[in-house]
Amino acid sequence: MAKVEEKGIQTKKAEDMSKWYEEVCLKSEIVEFSTVKGCMVIRPRGYSIWEKIKEHFELTINKPLGVKNAYFPLFIPESFFHKETEHAEGFSPEVAWIDKELTGDGERLAIRPTSETIMYDSYSRWIRSYRDLPLKINQWCNVVRWETKATRLFLRSREFLWQEGHNVYETPEECETETIDIIKRYAALCENLLAMPVLVGKKSEKEKFAGAVHTYTIEGFMPDGKALQSGTSHNLGDGFGKAFGISFLGKDEKKHTPFQNSWGLSTRLIGGLVMTHSDDKGLVLPPMVAENKLVIIPLIFKKDKEAVLEKAKELTDDLKAFNPILDDSEEYSPGYKYAEYELQGIPLRIELGPRDLENNQVMIKTRIGEEKIAVPFSELEKRIPEILEEMQNELLRKAKERMDSQKMSVSSTEGFEKAIEKSKLIRMNWCGEPPCELDIKEKTGATTRCTLLEEEKAEGECPFCNKEAKEVMYFSRSY
Amino acid sequence: MAKVEEKGIQTKKAEDMSKWYEEVCLKSEIVEFSTVKGCMVIRPRGYSIWEKIKEHFELTINKPLGVKNAYFPLFIPESFFHKETEHAEGFSPEVAWIDKELTGDGERLAIRPTSETIMYDSYSRWIRSYRDLPLKINQWCNVVRWETKATRLFLRSREFLWQEGHNVYETPEECETETIDIIKRYAALCENLLAMPVLVGKKSEKEKFAGAVHTYTIEGFMPDGKALQSGTSHNLGDGFGKAFGISFLGKDEKKHTPFQNSWGLSTRLIGGLVMTHSDDKGLVLPPMVAENKLVIIPLIFKKDKEAVLEKAKELTDDLKAFNPILDDSEEYSPGYKYAEYELQGIPLRIELGPRDLENNQVMIKTRIGEEKIAVPFSELEKRIPEILEEMQNELLRKAKERMDSQKMSVSSTEGFEKAIEKSKLIRMNWCGEPPCELDIKEKTGATTRCTLLEEEKAEGECPFCNKEAKEVMYFSRSY
Repeated sequence: MAKVEEKGIQTKKAEDMSKWYEEVCLKSEIVEFSTVKGCMVIRPRGYSIWEKIKEHFELTINKPLGVKNAYFPLFIPESFFHKETEHAEGFSPEVAWIDKELTGDGERLAIRPTSETIMYDSYSRWIRSYRDLPLKINQWCNVVRWETKATRLFLRSREFLWQEGHNVYETPEECETETIDIIKRYAALCENLLAMPVLVGKKSEKEKFAGAVHTYTIEGFMPDGKALQSGTSHNLGDGFGKAFGISFLGKDEKKHTPFQNSWGLSTRLIGGLVMTHSDDKGLVLPPMVAENKLVIIPLIFKKDKEAVLEKAKELTDDLKAFNPILDDSEEYSPGYKYAEYELQGIPLRIELGPRDLENNQVMIKTRIGEEKIAVPFSELEKRIPEILEEMQNELLRKAKERMDSQKMSVSSTEGFEKAIEKSKLIRMNWCGEPPCELDIKEKTGATTRCTLLEEEKAEGECPFCNKEAKEVMYFSRSY
Repeated sequence: MAKVEEKGIQTKKAEDMSKWYEEVCLKSEIVEFSTVKGCMVIRPRGYSIWEKIKEHFELTINKPLGVKNAYFPLFIPESFFHKETEHAEGFSPEVAWIDKELTGDGERLAIRPTSETIMYDSYSRWIRSYRDLPLKINQWCNVVRWETKATRLFLRSREFLWQEGHNVYETPEECETETIDIIKRYAALCENLLAMPVLVGKKSEKEKFAGAVHTYTIEGFMPDGKALQSGTSHNLGDGFGKAFGISFLGKDEKKHTPFQNSWGLSTRLIGGLVMTHSDDKGLVLPPMVAENKLVIIPLIFKKDKEAVLEKAKELTDDLKAFNPILDDSEEYSPGYKYAEYELQGIPLRIELGPRDLENNQVMIKTRIGEEKIAVPFSELEKRIPEILEEMQNELLRKAKERMDSQKMSVSSTEGFEKAIEKSKLIRMNWCGEPPCELDIKEKTGATTRCTLLEEEKAEGECPFCNKEAKEVMYFSRSY
């Protein structure tokens, strides 16, 4: 059993979450640091989570909204960035460039940090008439932001994977409605697939996307008291349309500039998933994102060895809808195996020993449950989906309960400071002024997360600047 | 009808295939040239073909072979390339670099032209024991090769999409067997999904992959008499393993270097698909790769207008398994619409007019057929899959017939030169010597394509150098 100790998670989540997080990521083998500075390797066990996210996304977002996938170039001419001034300024510090000399075009090429500019160059050719609208296009791709802060697996790296949707509409109303619809669908994906509750709201002026009219966001809140921005949907108004010369002939036979949004979520979500559910034994995966829903471990004794092994194989075959792992190796003890698959986050473990065989049953344990349940062979196909669903629901329930317990309303600067020390997610009546936002950040390290989409009525005055409160803002430390 | 003329393909395939190809690609809106030199934009109609290829690939290659998807960094340190000398030399002319100054690591970073080196760096950490083998990992990603020749949509561009599989085995025999199995699966994908016949064979020493022991290839042959290398599977032996320090403890408790292969196919396949099947009316898509299998066009007259429109909607709903387009707009004539969907390559057209409604039937025309067929409403769900399957088979049959007609055996240098002038795919008993290969290329412009996997016995002597023939080689011009 020595090897289990060595392989298992050495750090407690409650003691040093940052170190614990890295250990869980590395030891469950979902990701590793690449030798290339700032970059990560998404290993098969991690990539399968991304594939589940993609699949769910296609079904619940792209398909119902009529969004089509496409692929645009990795390289963006420098001049494209400068067409929309705020956008260029917002991204310039973190762009990686390909030399003028190589390009031979007298102009540097950016490696895309986001694709508004390169996509809208094409849109300016594609959109001619109101009949071409709405245009709804998404791409799944890699993007590069030359981060100089320390690399954090999934959370901050120079390259990551994401989807970026870019829609174009005739009217500002359509645009705003769908920008909001999309952020709600993002929130639903987090809750329904990842069992991760989020705040759904609007960013402050200071925190909105470079070039946007306003930005909607989903904000996860982690057990260590830091918010994780997990997806954004930007209403871009007609600014990019004007900058890129996108126009359409309306039903009125006049030329108009259309209204646009862009919306993205990334492999960062996997980081949120890990922090939300995992524990001191390793990774915990909500069943819906687990590639292998269960592992079958035969308990091998001299008695009935062949019969137990044969039944285990038979069950593996019967349960193939759950993509089971069968571990019938004889090199390791059952205890060693239990620890290994707990570390990997396999949702269900099925044990089958000679006694179970006699009783026509298996013992089932979920990754998060304390008890083993005896389930007769004949009921397995019915019971497993139920147990998985219960586990999925239980993870969401626990995560919501935890997040709710971290929320705190404050109405004084002292209250704010104490709440930040206690790593709370702060709710406060606020003035909404950018200088006050900066002041709060400098004094406390907390940033604005969002105002809620379901409007909350502001009352009284802002505790920091004593101006009239205009909105109810959420503040916290963040990733 | 003036607009149809304008939108339709102006160039004949038989007269200028290169110009015709570009027109079909652009006007069917599957792809466009990006403003960024050397790059293309894969538009939704083109990207959906890539998605069908991916889907088929996952089912027929990754799943049966137990290959898992992952994701490795876009950036590769320069020093990694130099670990395998031949590999570095093979790729150095076409690599795009990120400046030393930006990286701050005293070393340039390559934008991946292929990922052997960055992946095998990870493999050297992951592989410890024979229990870790075989290791089978694939990634779907973008790669960059800084081409200086003219950009050709899908065929030659600075960035393209591909999959690259990288497997590791205990023994050279396992490695060789699966390297060949993979190239056969590639050929099956081309035939079964894309209805595109290919030669399946082995590359000459000169044409093999930089760093490989040998390279297997699938070679398409286009109507203009040029071969299109459409996928390769490289047996890398243990060269990369040694260069990257990959080793495993064998069952014999000794340290060994494992054996590896790498295998890839790219968006280039879409180019082959277009050239193989399309015609002077525009794109032709084999039904299996068509996102929308059919278009429903109601013929609108005053008589029974409402009833016809209603039935057209009902059919659209009944046939949703085929992802139909319903075009019930009244702005354009049926003739205009027919031309438009022929240009787009929609496999089936369903026409429904007042007379058809009376007769409880529709008229069906396939994209490649001459005749319209009357099909009763009640038989549609049964007949459509049959008609689609017939069309899929017919496309493959026609493509094979055409390719067979282009093959020619030669046994003299004069015969060779005449055959090249006639744009043939040449079969010749050959010495297999690199200097002779170079000589043939200089004299005729033809390159070696492959020797067939199903071995053909060489006879006599090489017509070019008069040495003993060692193999039966295929030669042609190529893309």
